[in-house]
Order: sequence, then structure tokens, then C-alpha cells
Amino acid sequence: MRLFNKVAIVGVGLIGGSIALDIKRKRLANKIIGVSRHRETLSLAYKRKVIDEGSQQIEVVRDADLLILATPVNTILNLAPRIAQNIRRDCIVTDVGSTKEEIVLKLERKFRLFVGSHPLAGSEKRGVVNARPGLFKDSLCILTPTKHTNAKALKKMESLWRQMGAKIFFLKPSVHDRVLSYVSHLPHVVAFSLMKAIPKEFLRFASPSLKGTTRIAASDIELWSDIFLSNSKNINKAIQALEEQLLKIKSAIYKKDRQRLVEVLKAAKSKRELLI
Amino acid sequence: MRLFNKVAIVGVGLIGGSIALDIKRKRLANKIIGVSRHRETLSLAYKRKVIDEGSQQIEVVRDADLLILATPVNTILNLAPRIAQNIRRDCIVTDVGSTKEEIVLKLERKFRLFVGSHPLAGSEKRGVVNARPGLFKDSLCILTPTKHTNAKALKKMESLWRQMGAKIFFLKPSVHDRVLSYVSHLPHVVAFSLMKAIPKEFLRFASPSLKGTTRIAASDIELWSDIFLSNSKNINKAIQALEEQLLKIKSAIYKKDRQRLVEVLKAAKSKRELLI
Repeated sequence: MRLFNKVAIVGVGLIGGSIALDIKRKRLANKIIGVSRHRETLSLAYKRKVIDEGSQQIEVVRDADLLILATPVNTILNLAPRIAQNIRRDCIVTDVGSTKEEIVLKLERKFRLFVGSHPLAGSEKRGVVNARPGLFKDSLCILTPTKHTNAKALKKMESLWRQMGAKIFFLKPSVHDRVLSYVSHLPHVVAFSLMKAIPKEFLRFASPSLKGTTRIAASDIELWSDIFLSNSKNINKAIQALEEQLLKIKSAIYKKDRQRLVEVLKAAKSKRELLI
Repeated sequence: MRLFNKVAIVGVGLIGGSIALDIKRKRLANKIIGVSRHRETLSLAYKRKVIDEGSQQIEVVRDADLLILATPVNTILNLAPRIAQNIRRDCIVTDVGSTKEEIVLKLERKFRLFVGSHPLAGSEKRGVVNARPGLFKDSLCILTPTKHTNAKALKKMESLWRQMGAKIFFLKPSVHDRVLSYVSHLPHVVAFSLMKAIPKEFLRFASPSLKGTTRIAASDIELWSDIFLSNSKNINKAIQALEEQLLKIKSAIYKKDRQRLVEVLKAAKSKRELLI
């Protein structure tokens, strides 16, 4: 089902590239143009048939009827004014950023038909080299409409994500950021902190459990700095909530209070079992 | 290569059962006897050909020349006096517990030929139903000899673990417990705390990264309470080290100090990359 004519993707990385591959495989658009600062990214994306055409010039977005912003948050905000001068009036604009409140507020001022999206399908891997069709199948995608969101544009974005196999949720940008600070940003803070806390000379004894717990500490630093800084208040609250739980466990251990310790661990375990 | 005649395994769970399967597959002993409090465990282990004989009576360990204690730490300590009355004088005794200082000190007083072992191959799964041959292949096994350890017994235990494919390290019990408090116990504390901190209603938005980070929060509660309590001082220090790192990230986020934040995350990422 063709939903768009020409799709422009700014930032052809893991997410941007995987969207492109799905759009092609499912024939959801006639043409895909990739925009990147890096010539090598574009030529790799072209060789792997991720995009039909690549350019380092933002002006190529001119004829697109869908524009997908898939660079880190900061880059999106920097590019927005120039993009806004170049797109068609009826071009739907979306992003795939991991925080929403700030970016939705700013981008819906710039773009008439803006719809915020957040596909929860990233990993510690990055780059078009890791892009693959089917990345979004059975993953979650949160759309963050506001009172300014155009209903038709929202509907079209919903169709696009559904065609790629994602399960759609709708959340207000502020609610999105609060939820994500717990289910995604806090685990990253924890993984980074845990790696940092472990003495280097102990790493040769790393068990599978340590590796699993810290896999995401290998994530992209610039991307995650952006995320942490653009959702600072929520993340700091989430860190505090974690610290409270650490304190509970620490104090039960310190007091050798087995009953209390079992109680806390049980509550955690039964919650974890809800996640399959 | 037959290393033993009759092996008795007290506690036929994931670890005990997997050792039994490897011993049989590689013909490292003539006979394996399983001891468990639970009749169902014994009959399941017998049906799955994990053991040659099962008993709820500890007295069956009488003729064994190798005794493997594979129950949680507390149970081991409770059973030790009765076992000591029943074994042969030349029976090598080992355990597979996750903490070593307390248990090695106590067990080498009870057993003439005691060698402490810790195979780093557990997971959130448990029970003989999850036992499998090859569990220890390419995993680490830490042996914790002391000045009281019999050299021949140590050599034999080393052979046994090598035959099962484990990479052997030797650490003093106290060093083992400090190392493990960071590389294994702290990740579990973190996973439990993280699960506990996340509001239940947010769990439907769980991403793959949250699932990976908290998988081990589904681990056995009794086992982990034992571990936390028997290594309390080291674990509390490790938690403090983690809290310091959390504070660094929290304060960089709060102050919007991007440079400092990037610095901390980079150090964590480059350490994580050492783990593959």
C-alpha cells in the first residue's frame, strides 16, 4: 500500500536506514532520498539499496511528502530552520527521537504537519551498517500528538508504523518523557554507572549476568548525552527512585535483616516476571 | 578419563545437575548419586538420566570419593556436620557456592579434603529441569585454595573442571568475594533495585534494553538473599561505589554539564567494550 510518493530521511543510521528498508520492501513509497553529513554513509546506504538517492545537501528534501528526522536530538534542532525553508507546505514531518517534550514543542512551531514518533527499537548498535528490514516488527512505537497535531497527518504516520509491524501507543509528550525516563533512560544510566564502578582488573571475571546487565553501556555516547540532557528532570527523579531502592537493599544487608531483604527482592522478581 | 569412582551430589539443581550430566557424558566417574530433600527432584533427575541413584537420606554419601555440595550456602552449612560423620576419610569435598570466605573457613574445618569451587555459569533459571551438558564449556570456574588445601585434591578438582570445559582461576576466598561483589553480586542488586524502582503501570512500555538489564531480577530469591547476606561487607562497598557513579551522572545532568557527562559515559563505554 503506497502511503507516500517521496520520502526524505535525514540521518541514515540504524533507525533511519531500517525505516527506509521497510518502506522499500513493503512498497510504502515510490522513492527514498537519504540526507547525511557523511559521504561514506550515503554511498554505503546506496550500495546496500537502503536509499534510491543520497545527498549531503539538505535542499534535496524539497519535493518530499514525508520527511523523517532520524539524527540525534541536537542535530534535529539545529537543522530544523533550514529544513523548514525548503519543504513543501503539505509535507508531513516526523522524528524518531528518544525524548519528546522539548523537541515536539519546538518542531511543531517550525512544521505545520509535525507528528512526534518514538520507535522503541534501538540497541547499542548503530549506523546504517546495522540497519535491517523488520527491525520494528512487534516493537513498540509511541506517537506523541498534541492539540496542534493534524489529524490526517497523525493517521498517516500511524499507518506507516503499523505497516512496519510496530504496536502503536499514543502518549502526551510530557508523559512519554516520564515513562521513558524509567523504562529506557534509567537502565542506561545504571548500565553506565555499573561499568564505571567496577575496577578494571576485575573485568576478566565478568559473568554472563554482568554482560547482560551492561550491554547498553556500549551505546553511542553523543546520542545518550543528548537524551540525558534533554530529559534531565525526569531522569534525575528516576535516579532518585533507584537510589531509594538501593538504600533499602543496602540497609537490609547491613542489618542482616533476611526477612526484609527477601521482601524487597520478591517484589522486584514478581515485577520482572511480568516482562516475560 | 575416569577421575572418580562414585560421585555424590547434594542438591540436584541447575548446577549440580549439569555437573552430573557432564560427568556422565565424559565418563569422569563410574556412578553418580543424587541427594535432595525433594522426591520429585530425584525422580525427575533419575528419569532424565542425570543421576544413577537418588536418595533423600544424606547417609548415601558414605562410599563416595567425591562429594559435591550444590545447595544454597545456608543449607550447606546446616548439612555439613551430618555429612562429615558419614563420608570416607579420603573423600574429596567441594562446593559450588557463589560466596567463599565464610563457607571455605567453615567447611575446611569439617572436611579434611575440602576444595572451594565457584563455577560462574548460573543464570536466572534454576532446577534440574534446566540442567544441561556443556553448561560449563568456556565458562569461568574460580577455585579458592587456602594454606589448608590438600594439593592432590586441588589438582583433581582442577582436572574435573577442565574436563567440563571451564577456564580455571585461583583466588584466595577473600579476594574471590571482593571480586564477585562487583562482577556478579552488584549487577544483581542493581537489577532488583531497577525493577523495584519502575512504576508498574510503565512496564507495558518495557524496551529490549530494560529487559536485558533486568533479566537477572528473575533469579531465585532465597539463593540471592543467602549470597547478599554472606558477602555483606563487600557488597555494601560495591553499592557505595555504584552510588558514587550515579551521583556523578546525576550531577552532570543537573548542571547541564555536557562535557563532564560525555567524559563519564565514555569511560564506562570503553570499559564495556573490553567485555566484547
